[in-house]
Amino acid sequence: SQTERGRGRSSSLPTKTLNPSPTKPPPPSSSGGGASHRQPTHQAKMPLGQRAGDKSDSRYCGVEVLDFPAGDGLPAVLTHSLSSAFDFLLAPLVDPDYRPTPGAVLPVAASDLVLSPSQWSSHIVGKISEWIDLDSEDEQLRLDSELTLKQEIAWATHLSLQACVIPPPKRSTCANYARVVNNILQGLTNMQLWLRIPLEKSESMDEDHDKSETVDSWEWWNSFRLLCEHSSQLYVALDILSSLPSMNSLGRWFGEPVRAAILQTDAFLTNARGYPCLSKRHQTLLTGFFNHSVQVIISGRSNHNVSQVSEGVLSRDENHTEDTPTQHALSPYLDYMAYLYQRMDPLPEQERFEINYRDFLQSPLQPLMDNLEAQTYETFEKDTVKYTQYQRAIAKALVDKVSDDEVSTTRTVLMVVGAGRGPLVRASLQAAEETGRMLKVYAVEKNPNAVITLHSLIKLEGWESMVTIISSDMRCWDAPEKADILVSELLGSFGDNELSPECLDGAQRFLKPDGISIPSSYTSFIQPVTASKLHNDIKAHKDIAHFETAYVVKLHRVARLAPPQEVFSFAHPNFSPKATNQRYTKLQFELPQDTGSCLVHGFAGYFDAVLYKDVHLGIEPNTCTPNMFSWFPIFFPLRKPIYVPSESPIEVHFWRCCGATKVWYEWALVAPSPSPIHNSNGRSYWVGL
Amino acid sequence: SQTERGRGRSSSLPTKTLNPSPTKPPPPSSSGGGASHRQPTHQAKMPLGQRAGDKSDSRYCGVEVLDFPAGDGLPAVLTHSLSSAFDFLLAPLVDPDYRPTPGAVLPVAASDLVLSPSQWSSHIVGKISEWIDLDSEDEQLRLDSELTLKQEIAWATHLSLQACVIPPPKRSTCANYARVVNNILQGLTNMQLWLRIPLEKSESMDEDHDKSETVDSWEWWNSFRLLCEHSSQLYVALDILSSLPSMNSLGRWFGEPVRAAILQTDAFLTNARGYPCLSKRHQTLLTGFFNHSVQVIISGRSNHNVSQVSEGVLSRDENHTEDTPTQHALSPYLDYMAYLYQRMDPLPEQERFEINYRDFLQSPLQPLMDNLEAQTYETFEKDTVKYTQYQRAIAKALVDKVSDDEVSTTRTVLMVVGAGRGPLVRASLQAAEETGRMLKVYAVEKNPNAVITLHSLIKLEGWESMVTIISSDMRCWDAPEKADILVSELLGSFGDNELSPECLDGAQRFLKPDGISIPSSYTSFIQPVTASKLHNDIKAHKDIAHFETAYVVKLHRVARLAPPQEVFSFAHPNFSPKATNQRYTKLQFELPQDTGSCLVHGFAGYFDAVLYKDVHLGIEPNTCTPNMFSWFPIFFPLRKPIYVPSESPIEVHFWRCCGATKVWYEWALVAPSPSPIHNSNGRSYWVGL
Repeated sequence: SQTERGRGRSSSLPTKTLNPSPTKPPPPSSSGGGASHRQPTHQAKMPLGQRAGDKSDSRYCGVEVLDFPAGDGLPAVLTHSLSSAFDFLLAPLVDPDYRPTPGAVLPVAASDLVLSPSQWSSHIVGKISEWIDLDSEDEQLRLDSELTLKQEIAWATHLSLQACVIPPPKRSTCANYARVVNNILQGLTNMQLWLRIPLEKSESMDEDHDKSETVDSWEWWNSFRLLCEHSSQLYVALDILSSLPSMNSLGRWFGEPVRAAILQTDAFLTNARGYPCLSKRHQTLLTGFFNHSVQVIISGRSNHNVSQVSEGVLSRDENHTEDTPTQHALSPYLDYMAYLYQRMDPLPEQERFEINYRDFLQSPLQPLMDNLEAQTYETFEKDTVKYTQYQRAIAKALVDKVSDDEVSTTRTVLMVVGAGRGPLVRASLQAAEETGRMLKVYAVEKNPNAVITLHSLIKLEGWESMVTIISSDMRCWDAPEKADILVSELLGSFGDNELSPECLDGAQRFLKPDGISIPSSYTSFIQPVTASKLHNDIKAHKDIAHFETAYVVKLHRVARLAPPQEVFSFAHPNFSPKATNQRYTKLQFELPQDTGSCLVHGFAGYFDAVLYKDVHLGIEPNTCTPNMFSWFPIFFPLRKPIYVPSESPIEVHFWRCCGATKVWYEWALVAPSPSPIHNSNGRSYWVGL
Repeated sequence: SQTERGRGRSSSLPTKTLNPSPTKPPPPSSSGGGASHRQPTHQAKMPLGQRAGDKSDSRYCGVEVLDFPAGDGLPAVLTHSLSSAFDFLLAPLVDPDYRPTPGAVLPVAASDLVLSPSQWSSHIVGKISEWIDLDSEDEQLRLDSELTLKQEIAWATHLSLQACVIPPPKRSTCANYARVVNNILQGLTNMQLWLRIPLEKSESMDEDHDKSETVDSWEWWNSFRLLCEHSSQLYVALDILSSLPSMNSLGRWFGEPVRAAILQTDAFLTNARGYPCLSKRHQTLLTGFFNHSVQVIISGRSNHNVSQVSEGVLSRDENHTEDTPTQHALSPYLDYMAYLYQRMDPLPEQERFEINYRDFLQSPLQPLMDNLEAQTYETFEKDTVKYTQYQRAIAKALVDKVSDDEVSTTRTVLMVVGAGRGPLVRASLQAAEETGRMLKVYAVEKNPNAVITLHSLIKLEGWESMVTIISSDMRCWDAPEKADILVSELLGSFGDNELSPECLDGAQRFLKPDGISIPSSYTSFIQPVTASKLHNDIKAHKDIAHFETAYVVKLHRVARLAPPQEVFSFAHPNFSPKATNQRYTKLQFELPQDTGSCLVHGFAGYFDAVLYKDVHLGIEPNTCTPNMFSWFPIFFPLRKPIYVPSESPIEVHFWRCCGATKVWYEWALVAPSPSPIHNSNGRSYWVGL
């Protein structure tokens, strides 16, 4: 394994630790300053704007340097660009006229000394010479290209750049290019390579091809990354041109590792006042990139010679002094980007809390096997939207159980099974008060630590006469009477995945035959997604078990390829003697026709629950309860991502399996091509009973 | 593997990521706020003082709560202590009168709701009931103890405390205590256990033992941690009493995982003005703890009823208002701690830079196989002390080579082999100018990226007539003439470990028979150390290879057990036909008699080099060059730490082995007991030629 090497201190802190201890971040990366050198963001002087709470890379905007800055030109270009509010440069590193010559010194754009190490790594993305053509028929050109590419990458590594942009493949067959890049990627520890891809379905560039054939540039990217075996250091930089493919086709990229959108000045229109602006479709695309942490790089010659002495808030010339350099030719485009960025809605507070959870894989809770901690209870108890829904459902059930005539004579027996620290007890008592119904509550809880809090809550609130605390597992409690209403919150991100069915089967022993369960039913959903980041994070474990595990994850850099469909449903109570909690479902997904081909890395999962009659809650995207934060989606990965050709349906099978001590899922693709059955016998992932 | 579980967000961010990607810290722990909950430090209101640059835990001071704060007493105690400038409490969690009773609710010190989750985790260290005795002859007491210990730990886990202090072993045999603790440690993910150990060599407490036998409490700790297999979540909290063992005996603890020093008020003396103070030996010990990131906890009843209305800067009563609570009874002791802490010298700037490197393992450079990056050159070039020494050595050599009569007729040929970006070229030209000698310099460098910078340096400085740049590996360069002086800086932390001998053997082909090599010789050194943190970090890799690798590391939490001794020496040039760079050395270390027994985790290594005559540089602790920062020590681990009984010598053998393509070390202990030969055939660690 490659580790950071050193004799002593070095100016950038090491980013890989030899200490994988799970309990503490390693000292160097826990320090603010140094580690940020390696962050994908660039030290910004003036980010695009003040969009509240957005700490993602999309705040930063770079500019492409078109002409080779010979000699000491680079520092001047950098200073000018930074003072014009750009954050970083995409700049050529080596004279494009150079061809490998034995004994020659590489004609670099300035020596390493003209910028400080932190300037190099914070403000420069290297642009590899565009003439290189590794799949040419001309062998000398191929060999020159290979040598030059390696020399330029070596120089960029020497400078500790964070990333280099490598030019787009020149032909639809790019196997030799991919071989050399893959070869280079094996030796890189910190630097990323961004493969430049035009965002288009363009005419084929192969001379021997039929001119009428169009090429979907996503296919270039897909072949290239498959050849490079999904390298986690290979990214995409998309060239945005004046025409755009369909929105469904564009949507695929949100699940791909796009690092930058290189926006060509030619893609801009001109507004009535002569300023550059973008078409509605371009605006929508750019907003999509901003929302997916993609940085913009402005590129091209200025087509908008906006008068420097103009009215309007964007003018910078009112305070012109000798110190003020002339305005950057591309400033009007940057100003428009800042306008687009600032126009977006601010990130909601909840979203800001969750920003560090984006695309971060967590194992689902095992609430039966493990006891939750106080902090976890604390967090879930704050989800007032959820408990309001419960209170509404309980109130409706109470009114159905006890008519207005009976309110003074009938006392409903309600059992909260899995009472935790008491939020459902509170919701039940409030529902009783709201409806004027008398209530007797049993609060059943298996976690002795939560029971301690329950006792102090009951005492504090003076509920002793109404609430009885039972320190027991609901599955083995011997109840002294039967309940009219059974209330529980045992649902996971995928509905039944925290074993609500098994727990409620155990609890319905003490529910009256006409008793009500809240929730009364729940259903899980899945949809196919492109999620290259999640795939790479799982792959890093280098085992099959992690590819056969479901994860709770706040999905962010994900392309949702088709609407979600129902998987498993459960209803309670279920007194049928044939009832089983095993399930088997086959689903077919059709992608919109204009999507094109895509790669499926797995399935996003959700749930929706009917608490009682018309009161529901859930996270299925089309019907989700607003402002509820207790659940992130679940993700079922595929061991090998599946290429789905344009207009081919996806068929997936899901099983819910039950054993004596555990419950697990198995899943498999059947079309467009079969995958292995995942998680056979629950060998990799299961929930303990 | 255990991973953080969740349904969605939880109030504390997960600390283990499923993404072990080496290039980026995982998003959650890279965020400041959340991760700090898991840091060992406590959120301080008023740390001990303003010692510039010290960000270690020793800034924080806690106080032990002696009486069980029943009911809602804990928040009041916490508020009072924090407002008196203590940072955290060591507090009992459960009524000490409690004994396990079926069906009883655990009588905890307040419900989990009386403090917020962040208060629990930032300000409370749990104190496990002291009556528990897991090695009692009384079976009922043993069983009650086991159940109580597990219940209390479960409650502390529920509260997400960072640590619990478990009571000292009550007997010299504590196997059952260790078994139960080990069992608990297997299930803990985030919480630490701190085993309380009195810092003394005390009378044996076993009733059936000879009363005259003394017990070294370090032995208790050692047995306990060996039984718990060096668990990385098991730490020590040392009780400091009024009498102290010898300094050599105390020194052992600096290599052990000591988290806290619990300073008893009985250990304090009284100064002339009636205030508490410590003996000189206690002061030295406390300063040692401060310097090793150990936090102090004040404990005991106040023995110093200092008048609250006193003169002096420490008085807090001048501005007494109704809001000011009465002074904490232990405040005078805290004030004295703050005084001791603030009296220490500020951390030097260099030390502050390096704080995040403390005990952080790095692989040594492979400068022959890998090319250094610009940032690494930049860092090393800043070490002016080193280059000043080189310039002094070169000046002396020039004067010896060319007498004052010859200065106008003789031009010395000097070759810098491994010129990098040119610092030794500059030092050589400055030495020539200083001594009035004429110089012809060849700068030989194999890294083509550094050669680019060399060319621009020569041009910038106008040195074209004096300096010739050779882009080549010194081992295969065909020199056009022979050199009078050969200057190189190829030394690693262990002297020869970056293959200086092999490189200079290759370069001396073009040195005149009477030529001078600078450096002219160098020697490596080792000393045995206790270094439990390094051992645990290496162990976390779960393989043998990492235990057979040498690491560059800024040693911090380390006990140096005996003075360093010489290992290997090399002198240049060496024209003997029998010259070899293989070496074999046996060393015997005697520990000071009053040290007691100890555990050796490996050997710290250093070097010293003679540049020319009396000009040397090095990092061997007794002779090290002040303010030079290019090298941290090296560390050779042992696969299994070795217990060294009191007064037993340590014998270690070191080999330097040379193959066709690599050089490596092997090492082994012979006494007090043999270890396996480490790194046989260089299977785990080698330096490429």
